[in-house]
Amino acid sequence: MSIFTGTDTICALSTPAGMGAIAVIRISGPEAFPLCSRIFTPAEKDLDLASAPSHTIHFGRIGSKNDLLDEVLVSIFRAPRSYTGEDVIEISCHGSTYIQQKVLELILSEGARMAKPGEFTLRAFMNGKFDLSQAEAVADLIISHSRSSHDLALKQMRGGFSEKIRELRQKLVDFTSLIELELDFSEENVEFASRQDLTTLLNQLESEIKQLIDSFTIGNVIKNGIPVAIIGKPNVGKSTLLNAILNEEKAIVSEIAGTTRDAIEDTIVIGGYSFRFIDTAGLRAARDKIESIGIERTWEKINQASIILYVFDSSLSSFDDVMDSASEFRELISNTPKRLILVGNKMDQLVELPHGFKDFVEYETIFVSAKRKENIHLLAESLVNAIKIDGLSDNTIVSNARHLDALKHALEAIEAIHDGLKAHISPDLLTVEIRQALYHLGSITGEITTEEILGNIFGKFCIGK
Amino acid sequence: MSIFTGTDTICALSTPAGMGAIAVIRISGPEAFPLCSRIFTPAEKDLDLASAPSHTIHFGRIGSKNDLLDEVLVSIFRAPRSYTGEDVIEISCHGSTYIQQKVLELILSEGARMAKPGEFTLRAFMNGKFDLSQAEAVADLIISHSRSSHDLALKQMRGGFSEKIRELRQKLVDFTSLIELELDFSEENVEFASRQDLTTLLNQLESEIKQLIDSFTIGNVIKNGIPVAIIGKPNVGKSTLLNAILNEEKAIVSEIAGTTRDAIEDTIVIGGYSFRFIDTAGLRAARDKIESIGIERTWEKINQASIILYVFDSSLSSFDDVMDSASEFRELISNTPKRLILVGNKMDQLVELPHGFKDFVEYETIFVSAKRKENIHLLAESLVNAIKIDGLSDNTIVSNARHLDALKHALEAIEAIHDGLKAHISPDLLTVEIRQALYHLGSITGEITTEEILGNIFGKFCIGK
Repeated sequence: MSIFTGTDTICALSTPAGMGAIAVIRISGPEAFPLCSRIFTPAEKDLDLASAPSHTIHFGRIGSKNDLLDEVLVSIFRAPRSYTGEDVIEISCHGSTYIQQKVLELILSEGARMAKPGEFTLRAFMNGKFDLSQAEAVADLIISHSRSSHDLALKQMRGGFSEKIRELRQKLVDFTSLIELELDFSEENVEFASRQDLTTLLNQLESEIKQLIDSFTIGNVIKNGIPVAIIGKPNVGKSTLLNAILNEEKAIVSEIAGTTRDAIEDTIVIGGYSFRFIDTAGLRAARDKIESIGIERTWEKINQASIILYVFDSSLSSFDDVMDSASEFRELISNTPKRLILVGNKMDQLVELPHGFKDFVEYETIFVSAKRKENIHLLAESLVNAIKIDGLSDNTIVSNARHLDALKHALEAIEAIHDGLKAHISPDLLTVEIRQALYHLGSITGEITTEEILGNIFGKFCIGK
Repeated sequence: MSIFTGTDTICALSTPAGMGAIAVIRISGPEAFPLCSRIFTPAEKDLDLASAPSHTIHFGRIGSKNDLLDEVLVSIFRAPRSYTGEDVIEISCHGSTYIQQKVLELILSEGARMAKPGEFTLRAFMNGKFDLSQAEAVADLIISHSRSSHDLALKQMRGGFSEKIRELRQKLVDFTSLIELELDFSEENVEFASRQDLTTLLNQLESEIKQLIDSFTIGNVIKNGIPVAIIGKPNVGKSTLLNAILNEEKAIVSEIAGTTRDAIEDTIVIGGYSFRFIDTAGLRAARDKIESIGIERTWEKINQASIILYVFDSSLSSFDDVMDSASEFRELISNTPKRLILVGNKMDQLVELPHGFKDFVEYETIFVSAKRKENIHLLAESLVNAIKIDGLSDNTIVSNARHLDALKHALEAIEAIHDGLKAHISPDLLTVEIRQALYHLGSITGEITTEEILGNIFGKFCIGK
């Protein structure tokens, strides 16, 4: 498998691109030490990088013979006590883009090559530093921008999810061994593997894998944001409401100078969860024509949402004016497992509760003034409560589409074993089906892998990790 | 001087803002070690951060008791062997903006405060790690984006410029001591300090300070880019030429993935020098009306340039058509110390050299095709040659406006001493003038300083340095 023959030495900028106080350039591979010895002159007399102890830091100058580039700190990590499991050197230089580029050029000219995206982590995986699911979590960790997605990635990186998968797989492996033993003694027609125990195990596997598959809905929502649709008649203040929520969040995020994260349009983090407001612009447009062309297009949008905020104008006196298609809404809510929150905007102009409102009292209703930014925090609380994710504390949430796919295939294989058992198929056919399930479960943690899978996974990483 | 009572503990993100493989958070101050012990759980058993040796790296977990944030590397630097001269800890965490922010929040909650811009370097200066001119060079180093500005900043950071200033100042200090000795023996009317030697020294000082002041023209140009004006009649291809030069550069800059620097509009680096194309848009507009309203406005622009590229259409047959105000151009060139390069564009359509061209043969002429990108590299070479900076190898180039100001004041003071000597003023008056000169020279390296000066200097730094 050519992409991970880690016999050469790779380097990359590991800190974010751009100007900063410092930048860190990482070098990994068998030539890391000799290469650095050629371009780094330590301030300590008689220091030999090649024999310096692991996990030590050394000040000195970097550059070619006549061309000093910078004064730097060099951190030494000896194989296998490094991120990649290889010899690693991290050069901490001044953070000008010029210096970053020149130091990289110098390292390249000494025989290293630029690391591919995720190649440091790929090498860590190949050297057994962690399994594939943990490696994937590293990439998730770096892009996570809410507490929940961060916690999910961190748990996965620390192995919680992998353990569950390995545990399930091991049980199946044990059975395979017994069944294969039967094959050796096939003349004698004995059953080393109890078919009843196998059925019990399969039921357990099915149940647990289904649970993992179900957790993807939550996991995906945590990772990519909980889709929320803001709908309502024209001029009830939907845009103003969205801006009011966004502004509240922005004020929190930019509290600490230098760490303001890039604004993600229409995505906000409340209470540690990321909420993604789906195509509300389109919704608004569709809504304008709602009386004449029906709400078909709106429904499509609503179907993508986990939470619906129905905004109405609480200054109007009749709820019939407010929610023109009450019966259709009831249908929507009863058909799909979504949360509906009624938002009475313009609360400052509220005289009395509109007629007909009592029909909707079973739904949570929050009165706000988007314009005056009143009660927005109550709405934020409601959004967080609407998620009701109880399963977060255990480590068995699947958030990766590749894992979901593998789990689905594993489930199919297990159902095939089940059917085979019922049909009393021969042990050799049974092992074929079991091996299918083992393959798919093993592909999650990387016990079974292919170059293509690895290429797909690590190609999505940022360079330098 | 309240701004540098470094008795508290400061922290900041030291790597560029944004997402990357890793981020580094720096903590400096007396509480750095105890603070980190509270939030960091090392993987090594029985490791005590407080007693771990300096310049070592430790892997472990960071977070509050029940809330794991990340797995990190912690680098330890013990006072005085650190950047600031204080106890310093650098936390290398995963580079998500979420983690960066949460780790900072955790450190702040444990009693540290956010560092002000340049505060780490300010502390380094206060602890005698380097002088003021060297500290200023750190900021220059970080923003430098060409080889020449980088070299200049690096030399200044390594103390080359400071030494020159200190050497000059020391000579004056020695004289002051002698003159003050005269004051003690004033009854006896002796001259410990030879007035002739002082005059010789003053001449030497004047000459050397003038040289430093003159070097600012070069230093400033290196630091901020060499101003170049592209002028010429309408439709000769000025914009196309500029784009051709810019494109050539961009291809070089983006060679190494991940280190592409932010594009600085109309600024390009050729041969290690930064060239800044000044307000060519305005120039072009002015030039359009040149026949009718004269070239007064154009001249203003030209006056800001160090190099003028006069572009003409080499497909035209008469140089009179090409350069309509030849006599005015001659005047321009002879009046100001600028380099004029004639650029004959559309060389692919050149039939023969235009009539009247021979009058300009004393100026360098390059024929190019901006559209076909032919000979652009020759023009680039000419731009570099046009600078002709020979003084770069010695360390006495001034690039800082504050230093220039101090040098000018020092020069004034030295001229006053000169005048005083000629007028045979008393030793006590002489020392007053000498102290003025000493003050201004000392303010460059920080031997003499005020809170205001420090505030101005370090306020311009980025946070985290």
